[in-house]
Amino acid sequence: MKLLRFQDGSKVCLGALEGETIVALDPISQDYPTMLSIIAGGEAALARVREVVARRERTVPLVDVRLLAPLERPGKFLAIGMNYRKHIAESERLGVPKPQQQYWFNKQTSCISGPFDDIVTSVTEKLDYEVELAAVIGLPAKGVDAQNAHQHVFGYTVCNDVSARDWQFHSPTFTMGKSFDTHGPIGPWIVTADEIADPHALGLRCSVNGELRQESNTSEMVFSLWEQIAYLSTAFTLESGDLIATGTPEGVGVAMNPQVFLQPGDVVRCEVDGIGAIENRVVV
Amino acid sequence: MKLLRFQDGSKVCLGALEGETIVALDPISQDYPTMLSIIAGGEAALARVREVVARRERTVPLVDVRLLAPLERPGKFLAIGMNYRKHIAESERLGVPKPQQQYWFNKQTSCISGPFDDIVTSVTEKLDYEVELAAVIGLPAKGVDAQNAHQHVFGYTVCNDVSARDWQFHSPTFTMGKSFDTHGPIGPWIVTADEIADPHALGLRCSVNGELRQESNTSEMVFSLWEQIAYLSTAFTLESGDLIATGTPEGVGVAMNPQVFLQPGDVVRCEVDGIGAIENRVVV
Repeated sequence: MKLLRFQDGSKVCLGALEGETIVALDPISQDYPTMLSIIAGGEAALARVREVVARRERTVPLVDVRLLAPLERPGKFLAIGMNYRKHIAESERLGVPKPQQQYWFNKQTSCISGPFDDIVTSVTEKLDYEVELAAVIGLPAKGVDAQNAHQHVFGYTVCNDVSARDWQFHSPTFTMGKSFDTHGPIGPWIVTADEIADPHALGLRCSVNGELRQESNTSEMVFSLWEQIAYLSTAFTLESGDLIATGTPEGVGVAMNPQVFLQPGDVVRCEVDGIGAIENRVVV
Repeated sequence: MKLLRFQDGSKVCLGALEGETIVALDPISQDYPTMLSIIAGGEAALARVREVVARRERTVPLVDVRLLAPLERPGKFLAIGMNYRKHIAESERLGVPKPQQQYWFNKQTSCISGPFDDIVTSVTEKLDYEVELAAVIGLPAKGVDAQNAHQHVFGYTVCNDVSARDWQFHSPTFTMGKSFDTHGPIGPWIVTADEIADPHALGLRCSVNGELRQESNTSEMVFSLWEQIAYLSTAFTLESGDLIATGTPEGVGVAMNPQVFLQPGDVVRCEVDGIGAIENRVVV
């Protein structure tokens, strides 16, 4: 299923996408008021969603609504740096050494925004894009090995790990430049894990104003999602709803020669096959 | 006021400490069910709390309860590295270069634990302590300058920024070693900002099994809390309840010669004058 959140007048509603039509999940909104509650509800919650979808009590055309980030604030929004071979090479040219271990940093959850929301430049002069496949944790994971990691994924979404390169390199932690408000657009929906046969065989690409900038396949990851979940969950618990951005391939603006950064008016489109596309306009 | 959370049978209650007695905040639990709701409620919420405290309808001796972390999961738990002069010096000896800018990293909010909860070693072999003054954000802050930053602090608490030094240095982001489950004890309560005349004039210390390991004063910070809030809020919004750990002074175990790490059975006590002390036992 494709699960989403949308603005319905003054209300926020949950829905499931069927073709070009949203089935509103109003009938179960008492028990499952938020996407996080559905995710935490696991199979029982998904069974209820499927019932509602089958009944189709209230439907809304997809084109008529504003989609919101498919997930409210998760507990964690973690992202791995330098996890595609050719992106490591382009990063090394910029002075970022090849990591010896998985290279994790946080995006603050306050940066999460909708799949078609604007990206606000704010104080950065080096605004950049990074298309990524993001996984949403379902069953909490602690001490899970790679072989069983897939059991802890609820679903997948597209993420643009928008980066303020000047602020990113204020410190080796990346903290300041990865989390400007509006710099975490995700969506357009969460595709449940049962619909993605192999998350390591998905084409993904990013274009700016229609010009292709990144194009790769999740098969090019250095550390698979399963290895990522195993590593993270050795240290701490991954909880329902936690968002894991699995890395970006080569082609980022900061690594181009000469460097090219996003400018107000630019439209950035990030797409992952089997999930969909998000598109965000850059504004001042 | 000293605001706290405590376990009351199977229920979690909020309270205000008066001497050695807790006044339960039950009468306003409908409007303010969580500490985050009080913090977000600002002056109006605090006025309600004061009324309840004055009425003293239900009181509980402090010694009779188990205190919980005074704050539920905040949106962010940010901590600054190398923010005390002598700690910078001891860190440089370990190969961590002196930062050119404020050096921020995340503790995952899932690591937060109570003021007297156990610290679980888990897979680290280099477990260490770091006493810190932590500030709790009240009014949301975006683009706030240092001069006005104090208006955005709701209160203060004590934090032990427990660190798994082996995992911390897996990558320069610190992400893996700062957030093991139970590695973020805070408390024992939040002292509201009106009771701390100057957060940059507080003695703080850490002892292990009664042996003093860290002793300094918040006046030794390189970047003041006001500068920290200004810097962070230039990049992104600090929201009500966000937790800001302001750095640790010299004396951490990893910098001792020879290095000394925490062992099961050790009791770590972290104290900040004007707030109180938290005490946590290390267990396997």
